[in-house]
Amino acid sequence: MGGDNAPDAILDGALDALDLLADDDQLVLVGDEEIIKDVIAERGIDDSRIVIDPTTQVIAMDDPPVTAIRTKPDSSIVRIARLGGKRSLKDGEHCEIVISAGNTGAMVAAAQMSMRRLPGVHRPGIVVVMPTFHGPVVLCDVGANPEPRATHLHQYGLMAAGYAQKMIGIDNPRVALLSIGSEEAKGNTLVKEASATMKKDPFLNYVGYAEGRDLFDGKADVIICEGFTGNVVLKLAEGLAAGLFKTIAAEIFEHDPELAARFEPVVKSIYKKHDY
Amino acid sequence: MGGDNAPDAILDGALDALDLLADDDQLVLVGDEEIIKDVIAERGIDDSRIVIDPTTQVIAMDDPPVTAIRTKPDSSIVRIARLGGKRSLKDGEHCEIVISAGNTGAMVAAAQMSMRRLPGVHRPGIVVVMPTFHGPVVLCDVGANPEPRATHLHQYGLMAAGYAQKMIGIDNPRVALLSIGSEEAKGNTLVKEASATMKKDPFLNYVGYAEGRDLFDGKADVIICEGFTGNVVLKLAEGLAAGLFKTIAAEIFEHDPELAARFEPVVKSIYKKHDY
Repeated sequence: MGGDNAPDAILDGALDALDLLADDDQLVLVGDEEIIKDVIAERGIDDSRIVIDPTTQVIAMDDPPVTAIRTKPDSSIVRIARLGGKRSLKDGEHCEIVISAGNTGAMVAAAQMSMRRLPGVHRPGIVVVMPTFHGPVVLCDVGANPEPRATHLHQYGLMAAGYAQKMIGIDNPRVALLSIGSEEAKGNTLVKEASATMKKDPFLNYVGYAEGRDLFDGKADVIICEGFTGNVVLKLAEGLAAGLFKTIAAEIFEHDPELAARFEPVVKSIYKKHDY
Repeated sequence: MGGDNAPDAILDGALDALDLLADDDQLVLVGDEEIIKDVIAERGIDDSRIVIDPTTQVIAMDDPPVTAIRTKPDSSIVRIARLGGKRSLKDGEHCEIVISAGNTGAMVAAAQMSMRRLPGVHRPGIVVVMPTFHGPVVLCDVGANPEPRATHLHQYGLMAAGYAQKMIGIDNPRVALLSIGSEEAKGNTLVKEASATMKKDPFLNYVGYAEGRDLFDGKADVIICEGFTGNVVLKLAEGLAAGLFKTIAAEIFEHDPELAARFEPVVKSIYKKHDY
């Protein structure tokens, strides 16, 4: 139940999702029982598909991940990771999908411990789907592993390409490695090593290096990078886009207040087009 | 004479700068003599402050830097680096400022060889001044060194703070390290090491980690990072800002063509405010 604007935004989102679930689905809300019950009551919801799984401990956003999951076994993060795994659970306790907006490092560590990884994958990677002017771009990793090896980047490529294909419906997605030039000689040791092996993989539609500007020019459907740069990229893009809209709005208002009202539907339309 | 839109943009910029130079300044144009003479003649310029220093070799944008400066001693990049250095030059041949828009890696390598570094500085860093919604931010390094050590980041901090103070006039500039969270525990080995030493430096107004979004929220005047991430950040910001303006313009035109004409001065005003 952690994350930005938690617990309200998290619970609101979960409860809104009830409309999308089948009659025999279950929505398991893991966290502080009292808060969960309050929000459900406030919204006047009475739905038999809701199950509350109470926890007593909380992993804070700045808790060191590994220590946190060891010392707080009764936190929502550790609990949902166990619900997502299949070990030591009774029939019907296993969840097919688990969602958290809490401490990313702790979630990654707990997921890795309880849910394991795909066969052949040695490190988890975090994927985001970025809205761009040419359609969605799948970016991986945005922060699970700030110091990966080249083989991990290669494995991110395979996972993220699968995600782009199955979840977004992009046929034979073009996979690029984020670097600092399109030429082979540029980049650091990590991307040069990853590029050499990805190039040879027949299961990857590898298209070479992408630069920072290529995230938005439609050069690739999937862009792979280590988690440090990926996280900076994600937060930079969010901050810049939000700031730019704010600056434009302020400037319009200063120049021509009447224009501001007419500009609003334009902004709404842009957001709608680029929201995946 | 290399770079985007070369040689026209480079020569146009250099010739425009004549208006800003003193009567006893010299503008030394280094490159293909014929092209330089043609452009000067085309613009009808006759100015005794212009000196042409002809070269016969060209370092291409994708030439490997170190090989290029060794095998092409008569290129503009190698030549201006020598003009910027003081060794083996006759009186009056030394230039106080050298400017190139060509192959960055080759320029960095040539500069390091002929012009040396500041005392105590072990690696060059490339600085850019980014326009943000809260004023200019000095970002260093944006690509000189994709695999620096922690001490190099510390030295970038000192150099970039000096630049912010002397060139932009920011008093006691706040220096931050780019990372993936504001908490001490986040980041990679490199930023953690750099942070530990920068924190103790009495000559630095070090304010801790900045995240990707902090580039635009006025948290710091100087942001330090390794050249790989810095280069991605720079190109991403350029691509995203340009793309966003284009998208907004297209959307406005689709919604309300008459609005487009009224939107133009708003965009011009934003560009003007954020052009340092």
